[in-house]
Amino acid sequence: MSDNPSVILKRINEIVIEDRPIPAIEDPHYVKIAIKKTGICGSDVHFYTDGCCGSFKLESPMVLGHESAGIVVEVGSEVKSLRVGDKVACEPGIPSRYSNAYKSGHYNLCPEMAFAATPPIDGTLCRYFLLPEDFCVKLPEHVSLEEGALVEPLSVAVHAARLAKITFGDSVVVFGAGPVGLLVAATARAYGATNVLIVDIFDDKLTLAKDTLQVATHSFNSKNGMDNLLESFEGKHPNVSIDCTGVESCIAAGINALAPRGVHVQVGMGKSEYNNFPLGLICEKECIVKGVFRYCYNDYNLAVELIASGKVEVKGLVTHRFKFTEAVDAYDTVRQGKAIKAIIDGPE
Amino acid sequence: MSDNPSVILKRINEIVIEDRPIPAIEDPHYVKIAIKKTGICGSDVHFYTDGCCGSFKLESPMVLGHESAGIVVEVGSEVKSLRVGDKVACEPGIPSRYSNAYKSGHYNLCPEMAFAATPPIDGTLCRYFLLPEDFCVKLPEHVSLEEGALVEPLSVAVHAARLAKITFGDSVVVFGAGPVGLLVAATARAYGATNVLIVDIFDDKLTLAKDTLQVATHSFNSKNGMDNLLESFEGKHPNVSIDCTGVESCIAAGINALAPRGVHVQVGMGKSEYNNFPLGLICEKECIVKGVFRYCYNDYNLAVELIASGKVEVKGLVTHRFKFTEAVDAYDTVRQGKAIKAIIDGPE
Amino acid sequence: MSDNPSVILKRINEIVIEDRPIPAIEDPHYVKIAIKKTGICGSDVHFYTDGCCGSFKLESPMVLGHESAGIVVEVGSEVKSLRVGDKVACEPGIPSRYSNAYKSGHYNLCPEMAFAATPPIDGTLCRYFLLPEDFCVKLPEHVSLEEGALVEPLSVAVHAARLAKITFGDSVVVFGAGPVGLLVAATARAYGATNVLIVDIFDDKLTLAKDTLQVATHSFNSKNGMDNLLESFEGKHPNVSIDCTGVESCIAAGINALAPRGVHVQVGMGKSEYNNFPLGLICEKECIVKGVFRYCYNDYNLAVELIASGKVEVKGLVTHRFKFTEAVDAYDTVRQGKAIKAIIDGPE
Amino acid sequence: MSDNPSVILKRINEIVIEDRPIPAIEDPHYVKIAIKKTGICGSDVHFYTDGCCGSFKLESPMVLGHESAGIVVEVGSEVKSLRVGDKVACEPGIPSRYSNAYKSGHYNLCPEMAFAATPPIDGTLCRYFLLPEDFCVKLPEHVSLEEGALVEPLSVAVHAARLAKITFGDSVVVFGAGPVGLLVAATARAYGATNVLIVDIFDDKLTLAKDTLQVATHSFNSKNGMDNLLESFEGKHPNVSIDCTGVESCIAAGINALAPRGVHVQVGMGKSEYNNFPLGLICEKECIVKGVFRYCYNDYNLAVELIASGKVEVKGLVTHRFKFTEAVDAYDTVRQGKAIKAIIDGPE
Repeated sequence: MSDNPSVILKRINEIVIEDRPIPAIEDPHYVKIAIKKTGICGSDVHFYTDGCCGSFKLESPMVLGHESAGIVVEVGSEVKSLRVGDKVACEPGIPSRYSNAYKSGHYNLCPEMAFAATPPIDGTLCRYFLLPEDFCVKLPEHVSLEEGALVEPLSVAVHAARLAKITFGDSVVVFGAGPVGLLVAATARAYGATNVLIVDIFDDKLTLAKDTLQVATHSFNSKNGMDNLLESFEGKHPNVSIDCTGVESCIAAGINALAPRGVHVQVGMGKSEYNNFPLGLICEKECIVKGVFRYCYNDYNLAVELIASGKVEVKGLVTHRFKFTEAVDAYDTVRQGKAIKAIIDGPE
Repeated sequence: MSDNPSVILKRINEIVIEDRPIPAIEDPHYVKIAIKKTGICGSDVHFYTDGCCGSFKLESPMVLGHESAGIVVEVGSEVKSLRVGDKVACEPGIPSRYSNAYKSGHYNLCPEMAFAATPPIDGTLCRYFLLPEDFCVKLPEHVSLEEGALVEPLSVAVHAARLAKITFGDSVVVFGAGPVGLLVAATARAYGATNVLIVDIFDDKLTLAKDTLQVATHSFNSKNGMDNLLESFEGKHPNVSIDCTGVESCIAAGINALAPRGVHVQVGMGKSEYNNFPLGLICEKECIVKGVFRYCYNDYNLAVELIASGKVEVKGLVTHRFKFTEAVDAYDTVRQGKAIKAIIDGPE
Repeated sequence: MSDNPSVILKRINEIVIEDRPIPAIEDPHYVKIAIKKTGICGSDVHFYTDGCCGSFKLESPMVLGHESAGIVVEVGSEVKSLRVGDKVACEPGIPSRYSNAYKSGHYNLCPEMAFAATPPIDGTLCRYFLLPEDFCVKLPEHVSLEEGALVEPLSVAVHAARLAKITFGDSVVVFGAGPVGLLVAATARAYGATNVLIVDIFDDKLTLAKDTLQVATHSFNSKNGMDNLLESFEGKHPNVSIDCTGVESCIAAGINALAPRGVHVQVGMGKSEYNNFPLGLICEKECIVKGVFRYCYNDYNLAVELIASGKVEVKGLVTHRFKFTEAVDAYDTVRQGKAIKAIIDGPE
Repeated sequence: MSDNPSVILKRINEIVIEDRPIPAIEDPHYVKIAIKKTGICGSDVHFYTDGCCGSFKLESPMVLGHESAGIVVEVGSEVKSLRVGDKVACEPGIPSRYSNAYKSGHYNLCPEMAFAATPPIDGTLCRYFLLPEDFCVKLPEHVSLEEGALVEPLSVAVHAARLAKITFGDSVVVFGAGPVGLLVAATARAYGATNVLIVDIFDDKLTLAKDTLQVATHSFNSKNGMDNLLESFEGKHPNVSIDCTGVESCIAAGINALAPRGVHVQVGMGKSEYNNFPLGLICEKECIVKGVFRYCYNDYNLAVELIASGKVEVKGLVTHRFKFTEAVDAYDTVRQGKAIKAIIDGPE
């Protein structure tokens, strides 16, 4: 019998399940969580396939996973807000409590951030995981653990919507109908956007967005170029453009389409430098460009509230479910592009 | 004797002084101004040399000039705030009073803007010019008409400082030590920036900025690259970067240097599309990019107040002065790059 | 046969219907509107009963009415956005296009405002009324003229929600369940408030708000004091408090209930000075207090969009409907407190 | 020989100097500071005279003092930014690192705040005091320890200026020319206010403010009422009013004087409830009222920078200096109203 079975990326292309010691609570503000559901993120796949993601490199074996929910099984002596048995969504990045980033309300930018499954920090795909109580968000009775695992990507969408200051009456164009784009579109609607145009190159994704999930009011297939983008939006110039693709032509099309003083928010990073960036238009229309990096204070709470209030329906994104012992299959399925969102159960 | 002698760009490379009819006040909110001092702007030179600037093209002869100050010689029947004899700085762009841009406080973005010396609208280099009273800013006794002519470029700097939300304690890097860069640096200081680093490729401009005008606390010559930029700033990461060059390497260096959540403001438009734009860094540091287009509500008033309060010393920028009859010489001097700022007197 | 029958407040307690000349379009940006539906506002009743409202006094006969919608019957020569036959909501206050208030996006604060049915400006309760085209908001096909008449009070609610910066996840307490309070609660919901507590002293109004119109998630009857206010809100401290009563105990209770850094927005003006104002708490919690005065740029458009999108259901507020010839009855009904909202038809 | 001599308020009206144990560093992020200079604050005097201040009550003996600067004599094992020998200004309130207030950048509102010399927390008037490194701000070479002791009240002024968003061109009225009012006026100037009107009932304080310290451009003696307040300001309506008196008539006069959309910031709390509060005017002019509670993220750093840059000259406020052994005299002098600011040396 295993103590703390963990899904470990040993090196590029090699994921194994191994036993690790059960972690013990040392800091009295921490809780121990039995992880029950974990979503697979694109960044996991980057490490699996390339051994790196952005500037982070895999240099030694690392436990995967950072989109998790579980049940509290032990609490530290100073813990006040949680009890054994509570269902929680797990915020995976723990900043330094002493950093200026943290003190100023923007802990996502903390240079000492320890983020699960970002080398060399181990991830959440194991039986037991430790977190400070204030990085766990309690799930209401009617929110499932699977929904709890989707709080992590939804928090990115919340962060983007808040940076974009989306409010009632806004018109928003979203590039990319993958999991992040779909959640961004849904969140834009929940924040009051009256019109949301979603753009992708696959008709089935657009249909999912507009008809099945109904997170967009309009859709546009960009595989033949963006010339008719605004026609598909009844001629409206969006006041917010959110790119979840990292593709140059999408970014340019978004900024082109913006109304004067519109805001472009960049979520999908893709690469570090871009060509043909329409800075002249940004001046002429006095547009604003903002970058999104993960999420920070209150985003996780708001994401749980979006789900709990029924304003964002995350269940529709889950296309594949795997047992813990099938974790390798899960990663292979995702890296073959077969899933919108795949969920791995906790170990039995 | 001439009625309304005017400096006219007939076509590329041909400037003449011709007589035009004296304009009559029709709208009762207008005043007639005897133009006394006019600065030459880079955009004038673009039209002179290339026949175009940005998307605007010269298609018929046009009066030049849009950086002017003068004396009120006649007022319309509804004018309340000005009297004959008042010294005024002339705001050269008149938007539609019915546009959403105007109604929302951002008239610089009005699609129906009539801007002096932007084709096909005639400019201010003439004896008499008409303006609505609320686009004239009265100059205090101790502010000269020459200073009044510099209110126009200073308003661009004010607009940039306000968009950047510069406040006490900020560290600002400014790229370009031409007239706009110098005014931006001076304005940044007036808005409270404790450290201002100015960057250019000419040592004499840097000396002017840092030692003579004292608008910058630090300077850096970028002709051999930007690698040591931050060393010249005592290792500080600026929280604001303002580019007045339109040069790719400057823009990238500014964004590279920014502290997390820093703001890059683009003033010099240069071209419409840029390569190697560091959007990845903008995401990682959650920076904000804003474009500047001219100036809008209250910028002109604040520019006059900067001069009147002694916080910005604009006189030091004027390197050349010409009589009205020497206007062609003036333009030739400027397009040969010999002047920081050249001023043309009104006709005698 | 009458040219332009108008409902005129001759003096205190005397309303008559008299003929007035049909106004002619002089300014080419104006349109002529056949008024079809007009709501009665509390301020009308103040003039009817007291001859004054706030600092405004009735000094000569004045046409009543400022909550109107109608059909365009004639357009000036410069009008571009409207055609004869268009259904429009009528924004009743026309500011000076030259005022700083207007230029800065806050025309509601224009000192030269000409506001319908605020002495000495005539109101809208007549057959034909003139307005600049940009103070008319075209109603979509599926929005009725009666709904159009309710755009005016809804715009006040929009303005309050925007000043309060209500967004997803907010908890809002609204004092007063009259027409303004109901519209404020509905608008708060549309702007994303997840919890709205409505407070009044009448159970039937609370039932209307919470159960019939469903604009509030929680309700509280304050007739026996406010001690248990937060109990009725599941112990939540609202982050926004909006007072639509002008009653001291409500204002104090709202500020008392606020979370740290909460915002109190004052809509109902009531009187000019208040006692027992909890400024000490405002300091300790660093709360913010904002006053609302009517509405300004874009509020009217957003109010129409709230109705058109189905996010705010205004029809449920209309409890009484009158023919034009019954206007006196209408005012008497409203001043007896019998109506939530009464609507008067245009003349036949 | 004494280990840690401390100035202790035993009970109302009884201050003694007693020995206390030297505190030992337990948390590795802490430093031990030899306190060298401490200013006396009005709140200290409230405890001395009344045994309470606001809602805080003295229930057992407490070390006084919270405006201190000193020299680092020992550093914990995790301390990175400070070394033994560093001169530091001491931020006296330590919030919980786990509170939402702290995480959101507003730690001044932390409900678990441990604030020096606020019962039951001991203050800084002793030989050795412990603080986390990030609540110490290193003083540059040319800033004295006495200036360092004045960073605390200056931080309140910085916080007020930031809440008021004071920027270049603002006109500010400040009520009260005591130490806080003087620092607020000086800070308003440093943040760009072009006109500052200071109001008090003592001519010598007004002379100090306007002529000696030159922190105000205009002054007004309000002992005979506020009717001519704006005359003394050249008829200007301030856009910011900051009250440092807690006096009803001052607050009302400030709000009365404000321009449309002006901001009133309340610094002096005085009492909890106020009468004759002009909420009607706040609505009509859409003014904003904000409360100030101490200071939070970055205020202390900015206060040090204000002193270091020469923009605020704090030395001129110190009217009395005492040795540590004269601490009782110091408190008696202050409570007799004889001092603007009194400073007590650290023990020899």
